[in-house]
Amino acid sequence: MPKTPVIIDCDPGHDDAMALLLALASPELEVVAVTTVAGNQTLEKVTANAIRVLDVAGARDIPVAAGAGRPLVHDTARVADEVHGETGLDGPDLPPPSREPEAIHAVELMARELRKRPLTLIPVGPLTNIALLIAMYPELVENIEDIIVMGGAIGLGNVTPSAEFNVWVDPEAAKRVFESDADVTMIGLDVTHRAMLSAERAEALRETGRAGAVVADLHAFYRRFHLEVYGHDDTPVHDALAVAHAIDPSILHTTQLSVEIDVTHGPARGRTVVDQLRRTDRPANAHVAVDVDAERFIDLLTTRIGSLA
Amino acid sequence: MPKTPVIIDCDPGHDDAMALLLALASPELEVVAVTTVAGNQTLEKVTANAIRVLDVAGARDIPVAAGAGRPLVHDTARVADEVHGETGLDGPDLPPPSREPEAIHAVELMARELRKRPLTLIPVGPLTNIALLIAMYPELVENIEDIIVMGGAIGLGNVTPSAEFNVWVDPEAAKRVFESDADVTMIGLDVTHRAMLSAERAEALRETGRAGAVVADLHAFYRRFHLEVYGHDDTPVHDALAVAHAIDPSILHTTQLSVEIDVTHGPARGRTVVDQLRRTDRPANAHVAVDVDAERFIDLLTTRIGSLA
Amino acid sequence: MPKTPVIIDCDPGHDDAMALLLALASPELEVVAVTTVAGNQTLEKVTANAIRVLDVAGARDIPVAAGAGRPLVHDTARVADEVHGETGLDGPDLPPPSREPEAIHAVELMARELRKRPLTLIPVGPLTNIALLIAMYPELVENIEDIIVMGGAIGLGNVTPSAEFNVWVDPEAAKRVFESDADVTMIGLDVTHRAMLSAERAEALRETGRAGAVVADLHAFYRRFHLEVYGHDDTPVHDALAVAHAIDPSILHTTQLSVEIDVTHGPARGRTVVDQLRRTDRPANAHVAVDVDAERFIDLLTTRIGSLA
Amino acid sequence: MPKTPVIIDCDPGHDDAMALLLALASPELEVVAVTTVAGNQTLEKVTANAIRVLDVAGARDIPVAAGAGRPLVHDTARVADEVHGETGLDGPDLPPPSREPEAIHAVELMARELRKRPLTLIPVGPLTNIALLIAMYPELVENIEDIIVMGGAIGLGNVTPSAEFNVWVDPEAAKRVFESDADVTMIGLDVTHRAMLSAERAEALRETGRAGAVVADLHAFYRRFHLEVYGHDDTPVHDALAVAHAIDPSILHTTQLSVEIDVTHGPARGRTVVDQLRRTDRPANAHVAVDVDAERFIDLLTTRIGSLA
Ligand SMILES: [Ca+2]
Ligand SMILES: [Ca+2]
Ligand SMILES: [Ca+2]
Ligand SMILES: [Ca+2]
Repeated sequence: MPKTPVIIDCDPGHDDAMALLLALASPELEVVAVTTVAGNQTLEKVTANAIRVLDVAGARDIPVAAGAGRPLVHDTARVADEVHGETGLDGPDLPPPSREPEAIHAVELMARELRKRPLTLIPVGPLTNIALLIAMYPELVENIEDIIVMGGAIGLGNVTPSAEFNVWVDPEAAKRVFESDADVTMIGLDVTHRAMLSAERAEALRETGRAGAVVADLHAFYRRFHLEVYGHDDTPVHDALAVAHAIDPSILHTTQLSVEIDVTHGPARGRTVVDQLRRTDRPANAHVAVDVDAERFIDLLTTRIGSLA
Repeated sequence: MPKTPVIIDCDPGHDDAMALLLALASPELEVVAVTTVAGNQTLEKVTANAIRVLDVAGARDIPVAAGAGRPLVHDTARVADEVHGETGLDGPDLPPPSREPEAIHAVELMARELRKRPLTLIPVGPLTNIALLIAMYPELVENIEDIIVMGGAIGLGNVTPSAEFNVWVDPEAAKRVFESDADVTMIGLDVTHRAMLSAERAEALRETGRAGAVVADLHAFYRRFHLEVYGHDDTPVHDALAVAHAIDPSILHTTQLSVEIDVTHGPARGRTVVDQLRRTDRPANAHVAVDVDAERFIDLLTTRIGSLA
Repeated sequence: MPKTPVIIDCDPGHDDAMALLLALASPELEVVAVTTVAGNQTLEKVTANAIRVLDVAGARDIPVAAGAGRPLVHDTARVADEVHGETGLDGPDLPPPSREPEAIHAVELMARELRKRPLTLIPVGPLTNIALLIAMYPELVENIEDIIVMGGAIGLGNVTPSAEFNVWVDPEAAKRVFESDADVTMIGLDVTHRAMLSAERAEALRETGRAGAVVADLHAFYRRFHLEVYGHDDTPVHDALAVAHAIDPSILHTTQLSVEIDVTHGPARGRTVVDQLRRTDRPANAHVAVDVDAERFIDLLTTRIGSLA
Repeated sequence: MPKTPVIIDCDPGHDDAMALLLALASPELEVVAVTTVAGNQTLEKVTANAIRVLDVAGARDIPVAAGAGRPLVHDTARVADEVHGETGLDGPDLPPPSREPEAIHAVELMARELRKRPLTLIPVGPLTNIALLIAMYPELVENIEDIIVMGGAIGLGNVTPSAEFNVWVDPEAAKRVFESDADVTMIGLDVTHRAMLSAERAEALRETGRAGAVVADLHAFYRRFHLEVYGHDDTPVHDALAVAHAIDPSILHTTQLSVEIDVTHGPARGRTVVDQLRRTDRPANAHVAVDVDAERFIDLLTTRIGSLA
């Protein structure tokens, strides 16, 4: 079976790191490139983190390119250090990155690869880079197989009562992406919060090797935030679920629905307004994940990461 | 036990009618007055309907006063005739109203009564009248025991993906009410949609008397909309749940939370942004119903209405 | 010639005070009542000031009623003390008010008088009371001859680059008034800033009597702000120009234009968007003052005030 | 004297065409490149028009690159065909373009040139390309000498009562540009409408050569719109004034002021809120043209264009 070529656009970030490791461990995917965007931490930090995670898996040939250092229109000037710590990847003791990112903008790298062949994009940070790609090269949209977005929520948000972090950071970018002609799949909190990684499962990875130990350390840090806000030490692994969908689409159940992005400056800024009950006349513009086989996902995640040397 | 004096501000409307009948049938409440507001139908129609419902119960001494004929700032110019029909109370064959409303504005009537003694207000339509009352007579807020609002939703809305009808019609009024110093209790779709009246229970009322037969007819019409949108012929009885809370506060479980009203003109206009996970620093400004004892509510509703002559 | 019956709705305020004195001194007008609204200072202070100004002119029979203490929807919580001082009427040494305001809300007083006969309303503060009047008693709009608003600007604002103070304080109220079926005349900064009262003309009033001396003192304080912001010690007499228009409509040249109120929370909040070049399809909803005979106005103002005992 | 190297980013458009011809005829400037953006007409048409205008002046070596085909966030989907006609350059009978645009995106071309040396950017269309440049390559901002924007207005707009066309088409892009660290000069309607080209002066160019005849034809078409809206057949030459400022900065008087872009969806969307009276605490972020030596400008424009072969 041919591999699915993907570009992962990320802001590592604990769950980004797990998403990258899952992708690297999965024969179904060819990770064509990794691009970065400011979000959980500054562009400089998340770019270094992306390389450090690739280093953990020994993936030294996959190009990494840095993209946007802030949102498209309104400079949010906020990182998620209360969730991901000062480095963006607090917890494990990772060595410095083995290399510099490529001397090309993330958007230009995506464009270069899309000119060669159809690709699936997996943005698991704010959507700034993807919006810039579509704004610069709308003619390349037809070469995008799918944009599997980790972001948004039908129900409550996590950064505000209305909004999930990735969409909240750059709602204007999200609007541009969701309103584009590309196929968009939305993996939101509705499913990521129903597919938790327990402390037990995470700790069990510690013995499997270097990657497993790193994931165990990541989880040990990451669970503190969830314990405080949600009252349990199971954690969602948001971004990894987007990668899992690219590996095995049967893990998630999706429905075609209208998703409108709130770009006002009111209390619902950054909300993904999903018309699940079809109360508007807006046509569907996304495949929205509404259900998840949590056990299959956690099995996939832990088995694959445990298989990394 | 002393009766709780209440004013019911409504826009009948099928569930308004059931709310009124429940109140009239309940010895725990003294219905001091009924006031009306444009919402489910025009002010003229809902005022006539309020009187017609009082007539069904033989309540000819309770003053009825008409209030606002449109929202405070933005004229929505929309009624809910797809839900409540041309008259606002389609279904039963009710005679014309036995009387005219009082020659006093609803807001002045509420103010007059509040000057006499503390009262509980139960607004089960758009909040225009209550906002006007607070705007005109802020000094009377201290005489309001509670404002039990039927409106809003923590989860999905019913008129848009974001908003429940009553708040959506006049979000600016809702903002004024929720931001006032009054105690506000929010009975939203989160609980009303979990306390359904089935066709069987409604039909069973038909034999109990005139009021029961009217309710059976109301339900027979009302269920059509819910069958189409939600796929079942059980119906919520939104407004009656607010009255039930005044009768027996143990039916609902409420939590003190921040509720911010979206008054933008974006896709979340009219949303009650409830900070259930306490992601903001906003102090609690409402008691929000989060759980309901559905069986107790339906028993109360049907028993009481069945007891009307 | 029959007098024009008017109600002046104000927030004195230096120019409000001059407007009141001009009205009281003018045989063309019958001042039916004076109502007050929070704006330049708190409701309590501006109500006391209104009575104190009536006292200066010996007008002890004109009813004064207090209205709204804050805006309709969004509580601006800002007074113009940098312009009008701590009392709202800094400068002259005025005795305390001779009486309390009527025990009736400003809106109810306006409604009571409008039920008797057609009236001209002259709101020279935020439009909260007028909006409440229209919201409560839309059927009385047909008895309003004209609403002569001092407020707004085609050009630059004075409280922000976009907005004039009166409209900026309560844009939602202004929207309700300008979108009503009533005749609305807008006297904005475009004309008030071209009809200045010089220090010389104000000082010349000092010798004419008590009222003249008060106006001289008012001007001596008021000019400080204008010297600082605009670099000259001539001052506009905004509110008095609205009264002058009721006395002699030939002082101003007005054009029928569309005026849309900006009720967003962006940088143009409170702007009166006047379609002077007819770039939209919006029908005219106001008579907008576009030119002024400044000399005639200042002559009228000083002659009349100088004629008060 | 060394030439000032400039890139002109345009959407020809009649005044864009005159701006290009003025630049090409002026020894003070080196036109490094011409880039295009959708605005007065579609990207395809304005790109062809840019080349056709360069062809008129025989400028076959200046690279032309096409940029954004629509605004950054909200797709306005409106061209100015009522002003500029079906082709965007109705009037003269111009041959088809002599060449295709470069195979590089306008933003990449600007970035390439900015990496070589400091440049002045003269955007005279919507600001989409400049915003994308800053979003993609913020590190190049330090190599931008000045961004001379034709756009905005302190006073009334031309496409709505609030907004000038270029800013109105893409307010989010304008916001990004005005809030960047780059030096920005705003040449708005306040000055362009005070530096008119009369029919006489335009017709006088007809005898000077090919370029002059084209300009005479352009003016003959362009004046129709102005006659209808403004009642005279003198026309502003908006975009050429921005180029003139690069040639001779003494033609305009500018002041350092705060300019905030209205990105709401209210009636002031796209307004450049200029704090000319310094009513806010916002620091100055632009040099705003407030006065113009109209005669010197028109002399420069006509002499230079008349000098083209
Ligand atoms: Ca992420
Ligand atoms: Ca109702
Ligand atoms: Ca005033
Ligand atoms: Ca242009």
